[in-house]
Amino acid sequence: MLGRLNHVAIAVPDLASATALYRDTLGAKVSAPQALPDHGVTVVFIELDNTKVELLEPLGEASPIAGFLAKNPDGGMHHVCYEVEDIVEARDRLKASGARVLGDGEPKIGAHGKPVLFLHPKDFSGTLVELEQV
Amino acid sequence: MLGRLNHVAIAVPDLASATALYRDTLGAKVSAPQALPDHGVTVVFIELDNTKVELLEPLGEASPIAGFLAKNPDGGMHHVCYEVEDIVEARDRLKASGARVLGDGEPKIGAHGKPVLFLHPKDFSGTLVELEQV
Repeated sequence: MLGRLNHVAIAVPDLASATALYRDTLGAKVSAPQALPDHGVTVVFIELDNTKVELLEPLGEASPIAGFLAKNPDGGMHHVCYEVEDIVEARDRLKASGARVLGDGEPKIGAHGKPVLFLHPKDFSGTLVELEQV
Repeated sequence: MLGRLNHVAIAVPDLASATALYRDTLGAKVSAPQALPDHGVTVVFIELDNTKVELLEPLGEASPIAGFLAKNPDGGMHHVCYEVEDIVEARDRLKASGARVLGDGEPKIGAHGKPVLFLHPKDFSGTLVELEQV
């Protein structure tokens, strides 16, 4: 059921300096910043050979990462995103096992324009898990 | 300079239940547990199509993840590991930019039998970064 690691998301307080570090010091290929107001973040993609890292900076008043950054002012790893072929099948299997799906349990269109769900960190070793249908 | 994402490491308080969740509920391919007493962890590899997730459980009295789990009893994302071709060149470039290398700054043989270094989370948006020479 579990496919590729789509991305690791890192919440950062200062997108410009975090991007510069990955680009200039680590020599990584990075995208231009993309504002995603519907998702409350501005994102930079660090394009690695096999997957990507997404640097997320809060955008707007109700950013979903504002609370995380209040607790972790330096930033930190925010979530991992795994690809699945059928997100409804994955959700039903997870719910049957007792895992909690965040929100109303219905897939939403995520930052990449594809259906996503988030799973409760308490059920996944303290790790916020996003599933994305590809 | 920055190559593949070698792995994401997740510290877990209970390796057996974390493994079962990934294997049985998410349908992932998982390895048998491997005790690495020199590194103070027992590890299970979750083999994804493009990279791997490593579940780490403390092993022994001086486990390097014991403090992390004391602060995060449910577990959590512990570090990311990026591949580099020349770890000494990478280290020198990082140090020249002001980034801090943990320990004595010399590469050590890591859990995969290859030279590794860890970089200070304060310099990488609150994220512990491992570099592995491949």
